[in-house]
Amino acid sequence: MSDVVRLLRDADGRPVVETRFRVRYFETDAMGIVHHASYITWFEEGRSAFTRALGYPYARMEADGLLLALAEVHARYHLPARYDDEVVVVTTLDAFPSRGMNFSYAVHRASDGALLVTGNTRQVAIDRAGRVQQVPAEIRQRIMAAIG
Amino acid sequence: MSDVVRLLRDADGRPVVETRFRVRYFETDAMGIVHHASYITWFEEGRSAFTRALGYPYARMEADGLLLALAEVHARYHLPARYDDEVVVVTTLDAFPSRGMNFSYAVHRASDGALLVTGNTRQVAIDRAGRVQQVPAEIRQRIMAAIG
Amino acid sequence: MSDVVRLLRDADGRPVVETRFRVRYFETDAMGIVHHASYITWFEEGRSAFTRALGYPYARMEADGLLLALAEVHARYHLPARYDDEVVVVTTLDAFPSRGMNFSYAVHRASDGALLVTGNTRQVAIDRAGRVQQVPAEIRQRIMAAIG
Amino acid sequence: MSDVVRLLRDADGRPVVETRFRVRYFETDAMGIVHHASYITWFEEGRSAFTRALGYPYARMEADGLLLALAEVHARYHLPARYDDEVVVVTTLDAFPSRGMNFSYAVHRASDGALLVTGNTRQVAIDRAGRVQQVPAEIRQRIMAAIG
Repeated sequence: MSDVVRLLRDADGRPVVETRFRVRYFETDAMGIVHHASYITWFEEGRSAFTRALGYPYARMEADGLLLALAEVHARYHLPARYDDEVVVVTTLDAFPSRGMNFSYAVHRASDGALLVTGNTRQVAIDRAGRVQQVPAEIRQRIMAAIG
Repeated sequence: MSDVVRLLRDADGRPVVETRFRVRYFETDAMGIVHHASYITWFEEGRSAFTRALGYPYARMEADGLLLALAEVHARYHLPARYDDEVVVVTTLDAFPSRGMNFSYAVHRASDGALLVTGNTRQVAIDRAGRVQQVPAEIRQRIMAAIG
Repeated sequence: MSDVVRLLRDADGRPVVETRFRVRYFETDAMGIVHHASYITWFEEGRSAFTRALGYPYARMEADGLLLALAEVHARYHLPARYDDEVVVVTTLDAFPSRGMNFSYAVHRASDGALLVTGNTRQVAIDRAGRVQQVPAEIRQRIMAAIG
Repeated sequence: MSDVVRLLRDADGRPVVETRFRVRYFETDAMGIVHHASYITWFEEGRSAFTRALGYPYARMEADGLLLALAEVHARYHLPARYDDEVVVVTTLDAFPSRGMNFSYAVHRASDGALLVTGNTRQVAIDRAGRVQQVPAEIRQRIMAAIG
């Protein structure tokens, strides 16, 4: 399983990253389908993949002093995913304001492209003490350069 | 740990249930605080407590043929909870349309009442095959009677 | 939901703490029963309750510099728990060697006392840098005094 | 991310499957490392990969009437994994008795091959009603043929 993911563009020129993986059994619940909170963790994995595609993985951002805390999440559930389904998470950087990053997501079933879940999140930049900060200038520059 | 929870009213007369529990270690993440997806599972636990307070627990609703699938969730994160914090989840039934239930939530830290997270969800009534249905008349009646 | 839990003794004089809670929906999986990894998090919650019953909650141990990392876990699954079941986790301190703590667990269904899962864990004392250490003398003394 | 995984052999001729993925943020805890229960879900993902490598994915086994419930798990934790680490789960079929399957696992860090966690599980064959059963003859045959 290679995870070379490339930075793409949507029709509006916004940077987009796709990542795909299979549904794990523990992500399901007694309804026989994926539990709704699992998709929220997939959004997070979408952000991780996004930063890896930038060549600037979030793990390094954290080491460099930029923590991105979730300030808001919204999700709409259209169709359920099931165990072992291959899914594609499409993550788009919607905005990059001075104090954070806004992403949107679309989760598709790989087999037929069906749209399962859509959502968006607002991340706020904090420092290690948990205080809201501006994205440090160097880090911003590095991300902007990667986005192109 | 008794879990006798009573049905309360908010200022607008809407039914409200409070449930309290402690943050578990596994609900935290490497930021040292509760992971954002954990609150989504607390909303769910708020709904469970709500139906127990009605005297009509969700487990019985499912046995009676009413499954409530999550169609939409929104959450705003104000302050982080930490391991072992006692938290109170306040769950309000906002609306009870023909095909589901809408809830809102406020998660407070018990020690000082600080507001940690707010959110709301929209549940859709489905049958065992996953098809959207109207809330069956008998079940609706039973819930309406319990709400009073 | 009060969580005043008392330190008890088993037949061999070992300290025991019981904690009870209800199964959450997200802890189930597509088999319709509680996912096996959830019980591992209940063991952890059992340890948390144990330290609270000591009057020396693990959160404070961590603040005092004692981190207990899991070195080993073993679990046997006898009967499944289901959503909304009330369960009782019985946590026993089996041994308190110089570099850690060993616990065993029995998870029962509250309604009929049925034994669902048994297990044990070995915790190793580490410092904040993750190095194995002896349990600091003061902390050991404090725990020993609490155990009585 | 392709997930074509091949069936390998260990030195004793037992069938082995390797799967690799990255640590997700939500799998970590406040110690800054992967939570111990997450590895248990990786074992499960190892089993899923194993059955996919057989050409007989567990999802299909379930559809064919063979459910494998966890009866026992044991894990030893040697070194911690961290967020974004690439890990390799090596899953070995240790035994295939009449009423289940026994697996062992080794989780390695991909970057340097360090051994992080080892463990094993015992799965018991059950039917849809949760009763222990013999692995149905046809399914056994199909698995044996795939193992070769």
